[in-house]
Amino acid sequence: MQKPSNARGTRDFGPKEMAKRNYVFNIIRKHFEQFGFQAIETPAIENLSTLTGKYGDEGDQLLFKILNSGDYLSKLSEQDFQEGSKKFTYKVSEKGLRYDLTVPFARFVSMNRNDLAFPFRRYQIQPVWRADRPQKGRYREFYQCDADIIGSNSLLNEAELITLFQAIFNSLNLKANLVINSRKVLAGVVDVLGMNKHFVDFAVAIDKLDKIGWDAVAKELVEKGFTVEQCAVLADLIVFEGNNLAKIDKLTTFFNGNTQGLAGLKEIEDVLRFIQQNGFVNTNIIFDYRLARGLSYYTGLIFEGKAVDIPFGSIAGGGRYDNLTTDFGLPNMSGVGLSFGIERMIDVMDALNLFPLIPFSGSKILFAYFDEAGQTQAFQYVNELRKQGIPSEIYPEVAKIKKPFEFADKKQIPYVAVLGEQEMAQNKMNLKNMESGEQELLSLQDLIEKIK
Amino acid sequence: MQKPSNARGTRDFGPKEMAKRNYVFNIIRKHFEQFGFQAIETPAIENLSTLTGKYGDEGDQLLFKILNSGDYLSKLSEQDFQEGSKKFTYKVSEKGLRYDLTVPFARFVSMNRNDLAFPFRRYQIQPVWRADRPQKGRYREFYQCDADIIGSNSLLNEAELITLFQAIFNSLNLKANLVINSRKVLAGVVDVLGMNKHFVDFAVAIDKLDKIGWDAVAKELVEKGFTVEQCAVLADLIVFEGNNLAKIDKLTTFFNGNTQGLAGLKEIEDVLRFIQQNGFVNTNIIFDYRLARGLSYYTGLIFEGKAVDIPFGSIAGGGRYDNLTTDFGLPNMSGVGLSFGIERMIDVMDALNLFPLIPFSGSKILFAYFDEAGQTQAFQYVNELRKQGIPSEIYPEVAKIKKPFEFADKKQIPYVAVLGEQEMAQNKMNLKNMESGEQELLSLQDLIEKIK
Repeated sequence: MQKPSNARGTRDFGPKEMAKRNYVFNIIRKHFEQFGFQAIETPAIENLSTLTGKYGDEGDQLLFKILNSGDYLSKLSEQDFQEGSKKFTYKVSEKGLRYDLTVPFARFVSMNRNDLAFPFRRYQIQPVWRADRPQKGRYREFYQCDADIIGSNSLLNEAELITLFQAIFNSLNLKANLVINSRKVLAGVVDVLGMNKHFVDFAVAIDKLDKIGWDAVAKELVEKGFTVEQCAVLADLIVFEGNNLAKIDKLTTFFNGNTQGLAGLKEIEDVLRFIQQNGFVNTNIIFDYRLARGLSYYTGLIFEGKAVDIPFGSIAGGGRYDNLTTDFGLPNMSGVGLSFGIERMIDVMDALNLFPLIPFSGSKILFAYFDEAGQTQAFQYVNELRKQGIPSEIYPEVAKIKKPFEFADKKQIPYVAVLGEQEMAQNKMNLKNMESGEQELLSLQDLIEKIK
Repeated sequence: MQKPSNARGTRDFGPKEMAKRNYVFNIIRKHFEQFGFQAIETPAIENLSTLTGKYGDEGDQLLFKILNSGDYLSKLSEQDFQEGSKKFTYKVSEKGLRYDLTVPFARFVSMNRNDLAFPFRRYQIQPVWRADRPQKGRYREFYQCDADIIGSNSLLNEAELITLFQAIFNSLNLKANLVINSRKVLAGVVDVLGMNKHFVDFAVAIDKLDKIGWDAVAKELVEKGFTVEQCAVLADLIVFEGNNLAKIDKLTTFFNGNTQGLAGLKEIEDVLRFIQQNGFVNTNIIFDYRLARGLSYYTGLIFEGKAVDIPFGSIAGGGRYDNLTTDFGLPNMSGVGLSFGIERMIDVMDALNLFPLIPFSGSKILFAYFDEAGQTQAFQYVNELRKQGIPSEIYPEVAKIKKPFEFADKKQIPYVAVLGEQEMAQNKMNLKNMESGEQELLSLQDLIEKIK
């Protein structure tokens, strides 16, 4: 006998949690499909050759690796053992668990290029695994919900994803801003300063603005080779506050004809113009040229969604990429994607009490009885109700009548139908409303009409 | 650059396969919920202490084990390396991928015993992993669909699962028999022969009857210590053909008062009596005392579902167990479960052409246009349709008009709406029915009414 536990950083989801999760998943899925995205699924297990080298050194460390089967040591020498864990790993492991949905998607697109209708809109809702140190809100197994449009350069696709974001958060009744920027805008800023080669340093530093403030960011920039004068020029941009149009004006002046910067601004303007037509109130789409997230493979517009009423980090993110499938032998396949941080969205909705009253059991009625005759009759009735499309249950045992009532109470089943001798003599049942306590004598037909 | 591939024994599911899979999953899920089963999910990753020792030696071998993170070799000596793969594995791996849904379910019930309403009806639809040699129809990653009722001895639960089986296969339009037996019937048979101690040998041998025939089974029994006379007695039972009642009569005579055997027969009779009331034609529920499947943890009734129109092995299976949670510190928790072999069911439905025409894209309409003005207008229209609950798409690029038509064709979108200059001047669009080729000039309002 052992004291059972979950593996570290993993969770079970019981019926109550599942009801909440499915509420969010179903809304997201409904909108994905309304926007023409098609579901795909890829396996949890991928070849390590597919996964490694895609997420940086830290990512490679955080991949869960699967031990080869059989007598995997037989081919190895003591020297392999001496060389240490890092090298050893790739000698005893050829497979790993997917780290995100993006790399498997790129592999899928490359392998199925001849069967897909491009521009291909796919969505994927599956768990991913990371050997991270678990902490509050961070798990080793968690779901991702991704929507991507691949095979088209048009900015209309960005506008589609922004509209999708709005449609989903509107349906969830969860107030969220989507901050947008373009990698080209950021590149334009460093270009104006003549610091092209320091683009990555700039992006890494400015990404911390929210957390550490401008003074610390400026200090880091100086350490990386920016002059104090350049930082003063940047400071003027950084502290500027204004609406989208004001920020575009500010930057247009700043760019002073810089091609790259202006191309980025044009992207922002085009996308904002598109979404004016999407029928949503668009005040929650915020152009912020200080946004610098996940620049590793993004090449154009980038997105980051944040809850308005609670500081909770990012609840959605994505952007335009040009070279995702190149590693898998399919170059020139531009795409744009948006990933919904479903686990964090659920946490935010919980914190803000945004979940409606969700019945965590679908059953409308529980049948109870006193003896075997009642049991037989109840079994007939319960199956009749199911055929009518009414989710129903029968208490499985002849027991004291308080037991089915306790059961219905615990499972939040709204009605209990009791089949006693008297009721059965009249071909009826005694229906109790578990909330109001009201009781009434009904035939099966009455019951069906009442509950339907 | 690399040639991408799936890990051995794993599959991607593109939009077409997903449409089929979801068709089957949704029907199963609907019935699970109509019968009051509640969804749970457990993590893919479990501690090896939870998984090992539950599936026999072969099962332990087939578990996918996850390599520990960090410098896992640092704590090991050369001697550990010398001892070989089998021992080494448990020194470098503490976690594995779940092998089925039953053991994680038992762990879950044990850990959540105070929160659950017993008898607890859970369903679980998730993938499992086995390091089996891949072959046609056998994968290393595949879904299981399990329904279990735990915390009640009543045979009504068996009747509920049988009814669930009928409801699901009826809805799928897939003809299937459910063969039932009781472990007690089998135990009674060997008891009558005075061969109690050879129960497992008997069960293992008779389990092969379908594959190798009675003569080979009898030979195996003799090798295991049965006499030729005992085999002759058994042969009389084995070759007997008849309906459920005839078989019960035959066995009643055979048991000649044997307590265990008669207790098993009583279980069969009770369950058959129950299901007479469930409103289904029950000719597909077949008592067969030769059924012996998966006896490792079953203690009462056992089930096995088979397709009628194609020999394809088992497409569902399950039974009553008494000690599943004992290993996790929760004794005396009897339950009964039925697992639907979803991957095989899909293969059977494919082979028998039982899938209805499922649109693998949900989109009803694609908007096409000739220029930017059309694009802007189309973006407004498409979002209006989505708000009306009509899944719709917009071709994302200004392109030659044949491109959106080819796209709609490939994605099987039934209508294409073209916004040309003339149409837009009248606030209308030209709607083409992709199947009939018919075209008509419609306003947005006309379109919504037509498609809704």
